[in-house]
Amino acid sequence: MDVEKKSTSIDLSHHLSDVAKARQVSPLKGLQKYFKRDDMIVLAGGLPSPDYFPFHRISADALEHDSFPLTEPAASGSSAFSWLWRLFGASGKAERTSRIHVPKAPSEGDCGLNLSIALQYGPATGLAPLQTFIQHFSETVYQPATRDVKTMVHTGNTDGWSRVVGTLCNRGDTVITEEWTYPSAIASAQPYGVSVLPVSMDGEGMRPDDLRRVLAEWDESKGRRPHVMYTVPVGQNPSGATMGLRRKKEIYDVCVEFDVVIVEDDPYFFLQVGEYVPKSERTPEPALPAGDEVKQFISSLAPSFLKIDYQGRVIRLDSFSKTIAPGVRLGWFTCNPLFVERLERHGETTTQSPCGLGQSLVAKLLESWTYEGYIRWLRGLRMQYKLRRDLFVDLLSDEFDLRESVGTRAQGPWERCTVYTAYAKPRGRALPWMSEKHAAKPLFSFVPPSSGMFVWVALHFDSHPARRGGRGTFDETDTLEMQMFTKLAEAGVLTAPGWFFAADKEDGQMPADPNVEGHMRMSFSNAEFEEMKRGVAIFAETLRKFFEV
Amino acid sequence: MDVEKKSTSIDLSHHLSDVAKARQVSPLKGLQKYFKRDDMIVLAGGLPSPDYFPFHRISADALEHDSFPLTEPAASGSSAFSWLWRLFGASGKAERTSRIHVPKAPSEGDCGLNLSIALQYGPATGLAPLQTFIQHFSETVYQPATRDVKTMVHTGNTDGWSRVVGTLCNRGDTVITEEWTYPSAIASAQPYGVSVLPVSMDGEGMRPDDLRRVLAEWDESKGRRPHVMYTVPVGQNPSGATMGLRRKKEIYDVCVEFDVVIVEDDPYFFLQVGEYVPKSERTPEPALPAGDEVKQFISSLAPSFLKIDYQGRVIRLDSFSKTIAPGVRLGWFTCNPLFVERLERHGETTTQSPCGLGQSLVAKLLESWTYEGYIRWLRGLRMQYKLRRDLFVDLLSDEFDLRESVGTRAQGPWERCTVYTAYAKPRGRALPWMSEKHAAKPLFSFVPPSSGMFVWVALHFDSHPARRGGRGTFDETDTLEMQMFTKLAEAGVLTAPGWFFAADKEDGQMPADPNVEGHMRMSFSNAEFEEMKRGVAIFAETLRKFFEV
Repeated sequence: MDVEKKSTSIDLSHHLSDVAKARQVSPLKGLQKYFKRDDMIVLAGGLPSPDYFPFHRISADALEHDSFPLTEPAASGSSAFSWLWRLFGASGKAERTSRIHVPKAPSEGDCGLNLSIALQYGPATGLAPLQTFIQHFSETVYQPATRDVKTMVHTGNTDGWSRVVGTLCNRGDTVITEEWTYPSAIASAQPYGVSVLPVSMDGEGMRPDDLRRVLAEWDESKGRRPHVMYTVPVGQNPSGATMGLRRKKEIYDVCVEFDVVIVEDDPYFFLQVGEYVPKSERTPEPALPAGDEVKQFISSLAPSFLKIDYQGRVIRLDSFSKTIAPGVRLGWFTCNPLFVERLERHGETTTQSPCGLGQSLVAKLLESWTYEGYIRWLRGLRMQYKLRRDLFVDLLSDEFDLRESVGTRAQGPWERCTVYTAYAKPRGRALPWMSEKHAAKPLFSFVPPSSGMFVWVALHFDSHPARRGGRGTFDETDTLEMQMFTKLAEAGVLTAPGWFFAADKEDGQMPADPNVEGHMRMSFSNAEFEEMKRGVAIFAETLRKFFEV
Repeated sequence: MDVEKKSTSIDLSHHLSDVAKARQVSPLKGLQKYFKRDDMIVLAGGLPSPDYFPFHRISADALEHDSFPLTEPAASGSSAFSWLWRLFGASGKAERTSRIHVPKAPSEGDCGLNLSIALQYGPATGLAPLQTFIQHFSETVYQPATRDVKTMVHTGNTDGWSRVVGTLCNRGDTVITEEWTYPSAIASAQPYGVSVLPVSMDGEGMRPDDLRRVLAEWDESKGRRPHVMYTVPVGQNPSGATMGLRRKKEIYDVCVEFDVVIVEDDPYFFLQVGEYVPKSERTPEPALPAGDEVKQFISSLAPSFLKIDYQGRVIRLDSFSKTIAPGVRLGWFTCNPLFVERLERHGETTTQSPCGLGQSLVAKLLESWTYEGYIRWLRGLRMQYKLRRDLFVDLLSDEFDLRESVGTRAQGPWERCTVYTAYAKPRGRALPWMSEKHAAKPLFSFVPPSSGMFVWVALHFDSHPARRGGRGTFDETDTLEMQMFTKLAEAGVLTAPGWFFAADKEDGQMPADPNVEGHMRMSFSNAEFEEMKRGVAIFAETLRKFFEV
């Protein structure tokens, strides 16, 4: 039985920035009531006639919603790989597609999904059928705790976050982030004189105890206590960590206590693939009980902050970048009506509505798939990322001696997690003393991610022959981290150096000495199987040389 | 022979805002050099595999580049109208289209025009083939005076101007605009604490003498002297005025003298339709000399500010909104490399690249048309707007007694222009004294625009029986202007009230007393012929009643 939902009861208007407060409703809005009359002759507005839109009809050959399987192959060494190869490599030949069309001319029952509307000037809230879809989607999937949440399109989560910063932050404000975070999130805030306050993480992401500490100990002489948090709660970028419901509740309670608005940037939400199970122990996932698969799937996922947001202090950012394609540059806000109205005003003077060609093709695709079909698509994608995650960790375990270790340096932030520490495998005809040498040197540690696209690797530079001690001033050219990055790149493998993601790198200091513990974000989202295999082999070879093992 | 072009010689960096100066180049940029290697295995970046993009191929049925004729029909009363009716009403049946495709898979010679690239994350500079097209287009059509101008995509001129404000203006700054201007331009600046300084206009737009006066008389206690100008130089919104080359040179010289950056928002550039000629005197336009039509067409247009910009202080905003469709939300900057680099940094943390579905379809369309074909398309559009402008003014002349008058109140800002003043026509069996009564009351005046989409109407409320004198505080509900707007809307015709466009309406004062001289912007860009005819008839009938003539 559903709990009766309340409307947002608390006043959040004090969170608005001076810029947001100063945005005015355009007087042109006053004209909109007249547009509702069918017989109105419009001699207002700089609207070209749709006769002059050169696109008469647009079409797409789109994959079927059930293009990707829901079950994984029985794992049995290389035969699983060949199955994967077929899966990943299915570049078109065997793909099942349907053709969808968006005509220019309006027609009965098209709900406004035509190019006469999509290619005309339109409201910042976007095309009506897309708006309807995402409103229903957010309500059904995220089950917000308050009844009056609204949705509104934006042109991707980077744009979304950037608008939120402008709507909530004044110069001199500080936003809370995870200690390792998406660099672009900082780049959206910092030029506006908005600083970042990093909070420590563990295997579930941001730590509530450290969050409470930094807020309680806030030094008012540094300006207003942070009132906005930016978090990637699922498959966190770069760490891959995912906050479960309990962790989210703990974080939320601290945010209530200190009156913090939570901005949930959640592009990896549907890539919740579950715990990694070593190849030898892996069994096929049980199928969801038939009949109620959609609900079962949704309830199997760590919920959104919206679900526990009884005060309406969460702004959720959804993106089609990972579920349809990044290039559609389309996503949406889900939040309280006060914030969404100010965000709409911002949209009116920047992007206006997102691109109508993109909006209409995505809306038509979703219409043709239906809500249930889109959920099926997401489940198929999820399985693809599960296979990719498994494959990537399997490859690491083929190339390295992986041990579920305790007591390593990397263990601190990863308590309660299964941490894998990698040692070099002896090669060829190893002599007993050589194998001991290898065993003595942990090269890197990681926690296999349960969501997202990334493996976050902590490099044990204390095992490196040339390691230098002490916490020095950061210089990207001479850290062991950048040296290793460069050697990998020269060998043909591109990874992302850890320091890119340090929330506090602005002051020239690293969160940890990159000569003792470096980091690397490796993604398993893009490479084809054979590439990935080659990449991990090169990674192993380069590490051996670098660590001289 | 072309004059040898110089690179920008003056330093413009002092124009950058604090925000723009604080934007950092992402460290991720450092990785891009490695992407150039074909054999690189990419385990960096959160890029989904293109296998997961559901769009396998997108297509469009697009009008041929020569869909619209270049010649106008011989005008002969209603037969011209029926010709127009066929033209405007050609809703699909007889349209010639070609199908264009953008496949997912890359292929030899596709210049990157495929969905694997267009739907992936990409640089804020957009798709390479589109970038190449617009760079060539700007250089060829606008013939900039300096050699190192660069182009970069944005998501429409509203986004473009908004980014410029953020890149050039600090809180407390003031930007120069025409006294009547695009309301959204003000709405993009005002929330950031950037004020507007209106400059008087005449029939050619902004007046250089008034520009020099306001800059010379600037009171430094109001803050920094304005260093940014926003102008719509062609088919100005709302006035329809167009700046010729001489006027632009005069404005430019003042901007050099006072170190002002000119932001040229020029969506109506290709809608330069020439002077209005009354129906009875109209003759067909001579055809352009064959062989060199493209160059002849371009040289027939009032040039861009870029052409005289020897210092690189012009930022030009181009939009596909009026030449392809508003919903593509695509346009571009053309300006000096310093500004374009900062504008790119801004784009990276907001919209990133414009929508890839939109970019690729527009790029494919332009590729299929070629540069010459696109110019042909623009010439066809231009003729459509010429026919629309002529038709609209013809309809006014059918409904009213239009006199090329001097000495009316509206004459001041329109000196050197052919001003039409409208009087009610006597109706039915008019008695001599009635016709005199009509003749005595000028209802409105206008200058038929030589570009754009708008007729800017000055309403002679001093002829109105209920007129109230004095310059009062503005109240939208009780001005004669809003009363008339409302009566028109109730009668089924939507126009835009003049006060929407007043640059200085923020202080609650109107530029002129709306009870003495009101304004109205009427657009002829959208309505179909029969609608337009009915709309003008309703306009005439409503005015008669309102003015009691």
